[in-house]
Amino acid sequence: KPIREVLFFPAPVTCIEPVLYPMKQCSCPLPHTDSAFSRLLLLLLRAQRSLELCVFTFSCPSLARAVLLLHSRGVRVRVITDNDYMAASGSQIGPLRSAGVAVRHDQSSGYMHHKFAVVDGTVVLTGSLNWTVQATQTNRENILITDDRVIVKAYQQEFERLWQEYDPA
Amino acid sequence: KPIREVLFFPAPVTCIEPVLYPMKQCSCPLPHTDSAFSRLLLLLLRAQRSLELCVFTFSCPSLARAVLLLHSRGVRVRVITDNDYMAASGSQIGPLRSAGVAVRHDQSSGYMHHKFAVVDGTVVLTGSLNWTVQATQTNRENILITDDRVIVKAYQQEFERLWQEYDPA
Ligand SMILES: [Zn+2]
Ligand SMILES: [Zn+2]
Repeated sequence: KPIREVLFFPAPVTCIEPVLYPMKQCSCPLPHTDSAFSRLLLLLLRAQRSLELCVFTFSCPSLARAVLLLHSRGVRVRVITDNDYMAASGSQIGPLRSAGVAVRHDQSSGYMHHKFAVVDGTVVLTGSLNWTVQATQTNRENILITDDRVIVKAYQQEFERLWQEYDPA
Repeated sequence: KPIREVLFFPAPVTCIEPVLYPMKQCSCPLPHTDSAFSRLLLLLLRAQRSLELCVFTFSCPSLARAVLLLHSRGVRVRVITDNDYMAASGSQIGPLRSAGVAVRHDQSSGYMHHKFAVVDGTVVLTGSLNWTVQATQTNRENILITDDRVIVKAYQQEFERLWQEYDPA
């Protein structure tokens, strides 16, 4: 059955511990309910082999935790981001790099303005949402999720193209 | 045959006169070739009944010309935008309103950060691209185009939801 789904934001603030660690109980005061944000995390955490992430700004700590969890499980994570914001206050790019996640960035004056992810080479998540707390909790945003082969291939190729182009070597 | 297409930007600067006016000859010095941008215009100009546009920033004059052309043909055009940028220098929202295009905007502190369009209620264009010259000519951007019914319905409903919510009356 094909995957065709759209998530709309802002999402209410909910506890994400059960999403990150399904075996754990959590008794924090936050609601333990589903939301567009928990759904986004869940879709990312399905990655078993690879996660390609191409995102303009990445400062959301919860999304960074999900990416680090995948990295710790041996999933091959590669991140492309924009050079203008990667060193900004609150950016998660530094912590990701410190943990050993492969990161490359554009070197141009234009923005690397994409916000898409490819999970296991088979599912694309793409839309307007930068990986920031403001985007997920405050803005009107959308993320389209599909496993359509033509579309996945197009995004995968764009990722590989940029990955080569931004090779610092 | 289903529509599944992805456009990647930046696009080279090309002449758009033949896209806007297919009957006219143009002898300007710009290249008269296809590009992701001319393709975007072409897909928008297919609208025969309606165009719903939900876009954070709209300052690209060529895209405004396409929207005004549709409006002049009697296509029902509705635009939702963000209040923080609609009065910015170069914004096309003022000219669109002056021409009689229906425009509504968010009133909140968060951004209305969507960048999607629904053509004739049957095709969605969505992605990272704001409707600015910088986005189309300089940035790395993507637009996904699909006529998948589940997806189109989701975006159409989001548009109608925001259209009601942003009703100034
Ligand atoms: Zn909790
Ligand atoms: Zn010309």
